[in-house]
Amino acid sequence: MNSANDRPGAAFVAVDWGTSSFRSWLMAADGTVLAESRGPEGMLHCATSGFAPVLRDHLGKLGAAAPLQVLICGMAGAKQGWVEAPYLKTPTRLDALHEGAIQVDTQGDVRILPGVAQALAGEPDVMRGEETQLLGITEADFTGLVCIPGTHSKWVRIENGTVVAFTTYMTGELFSVIAQHSILTHAVETGGAATQDGAPFRDGLATAQAAPRGLTTSLFRLRAAQLLGFEQRADGAARLSGLLIGSEIADAMQRFGAAGQLRLLAAGSLGALYEAALKACGFDVIMIDAEQASRRGLARAAIHLWGAQFAS
Amino acid sequence: MNSANDRPGAAFVAVDWGTSSFRSWLMAADGTVLAESRGPEGMLHCATSGFAPVLRDHLGKLGAAAPLQVLICGMAGAKQGWVEAPYLKTPTRLDALHEGAIQVDTQGDVRILPGVAQALAGEPDVMRGEETQLLGITEADFTGLVCIPGTHSKWVRIENGTVVAFTTYMTGELFSVIAQHSILTHAVETGGAATQDGAPFRDGLATAQAAPRGLTTSLFRLRAAQLLGFEQRADGAARLSGLLIGSEIADAMQRFGAAGQLRLLAAGSLGALYEAALKACGFDVIMIDAEQASRRGLARAAIHLWGAQFAS
Repeated sequence: MNSANDRPGAAFVAVDWGTSSFRSWLMAADGTVLAESRGPEGMLHCATSGFAPVLRDHLGKLGAAAPLQVLICGMAGAKQGWVEAPYLKTPTRLDALHEGAIQVDTQGDVRILPGVAQALAGEPDVMRGEETQLLGITEADFTGLVCIPGTHSKWVRIENGTVVAFTTYMTGELFSVIAQHSILTHAVETGGAATQDGAPFRDGLATAQAAPRGLTTSLFRLRAAQLLGFEQRADGAARLSGLLIGSEIADAMQRFGAAGQLRLLAAGSLGALYEAALKACGFDVIMIDAEQASRRGLARAAIHLWGAQFAS
Repeated sequence: MNSANDRPGAAFVAVDWGTSSFRSWLMAADGTVLAESRGPEGMLHCATSGFAPVLRDHLGKLGAAAPLQVLICGMAGAKQGWVEAPYLKTPTRLDALHEGAIQVDTQGDVRILPGVAQALAGEPDVMRGEETQLLGITEADFTGLVCIPGTHSKWVRIENGTVVAFTTYMTGELFSVIAQHSILTHAVETGGAATQDGAPFRDGLATAQAAPRGLTTSLFRLRAAQLLGFEQRADGAARLSGLLIGSEIADAMQRFGAAGQLRLLAAGSLGALYEAALKACGFDVIMIDAEQASRRGLARAAIHLWGAQFAS
């Protein structure tokens, strides 16, 4: 197996290929990271410039020579991505993800993991990339609830290692779109303030909890409160963040049951905000680094795919 | 009084000066419209080019000569407008609006009506322009609920001619921002479809009613449903419209009480959508043309201000 890549001990290359980012790692069979290469060449970028050259460049930076074993998760497998890896349908076992991997017709053994779809007319939902993170952070018999905050936040119910239900919230995207393109541009300073767990964030959370169906009025009132001198513009971003995250949690608690233990897959300041918010709502939060989760999920799927060779 | 303007019978000029539009009418003392002039020179336009020249141009088109009596409502009285007409605070009688009018230092007698603020820390809200429409469509002792849909929809509780409480929803603005700047650009064709009261609109309404706290997930699922083949892109705009209007109505029903009689101040296809939605929710809807309401409110306030002269 070492012959597959030219660094000693290298077993395969793990790639998390998102909408707007590319992250890759040269991995040893035991999960050790030997090298890392990342860039802004996400799906949107590659849709015009092509996927193969981007992968080739990063493999070069990793010092990984062909013939290679490369395992990819994320938007590269979307319909508008490199090669479509059709969704697995819920309920689906996480340790069966690799069975849906699609081989890319290129030099070496390059495969893309599938996303997961909840193909129910009343509750249609999709994920790409998160399923691999879930594989990375759950035991084969795991039962519980996982929250993965972000542009499109996911709440996932897993039973005995099987994804049984999930819900996506447009929390992060709505924050950007509202802060940049609505009347709230006058009320929100984009920058660091959105990521502070202070009084304005907590107030936003409390407002969302108190009136969970009133999001579109709470948004307008954020602006009105500043016009009337009750609030400061400097607090607008944190308050908006509290409103949107609070709204997400209020709905999720109704769908997935009252607070209990929850695995929070996040990092940095966004992770800290969600941790504070979820704890305030009574959740018993276990925080897990999101990027490690992707890498570990790719490693687990790689062992499922190429395990026999790893052992050689 | 006729001497004030050079058209026979002209009593004053009524102006509805909004964020992105200017509408003016040369009015007779009995409320008859003698001439009309409108344009795109709203507050945003005038903030750079100035307000006085725009008014002068339109007065010319109306054939209204100085010295003039001009009564203005709307965003021209905002802090970022021409001259600020400070908000009246709730509770405030509608027939006292004229007492808050601010005179503009220009040729003739030009006054701007104030907006109304709900200056409560927990429920801050503001309106500019709608208060004049309300004056135009309510009797002095009116008690009831009024809905004014639009970019920033208003629901207003009036008791015995006094505005006692109101709530603004960012419904129209969220529709535009989400359709133009979020991932839903792939799922929504902006155009006529948003204004059709058909099955997709009704489905959106029903979804919002069934899960009123789930707006940010319903938005994502609109896209997911199309990816999974449950819904068509051609229906996306109507469905988005249904979700947002349904979300507004669900919250308003909680705040203002279950369905009863309601005056709907609207026009055209948006008015038809709201009428259908409100009736479906059990409201007994009386539809009133929004533009007529502005004009009639300006006429009533003008009589309060200059009534003695009108009689001369």
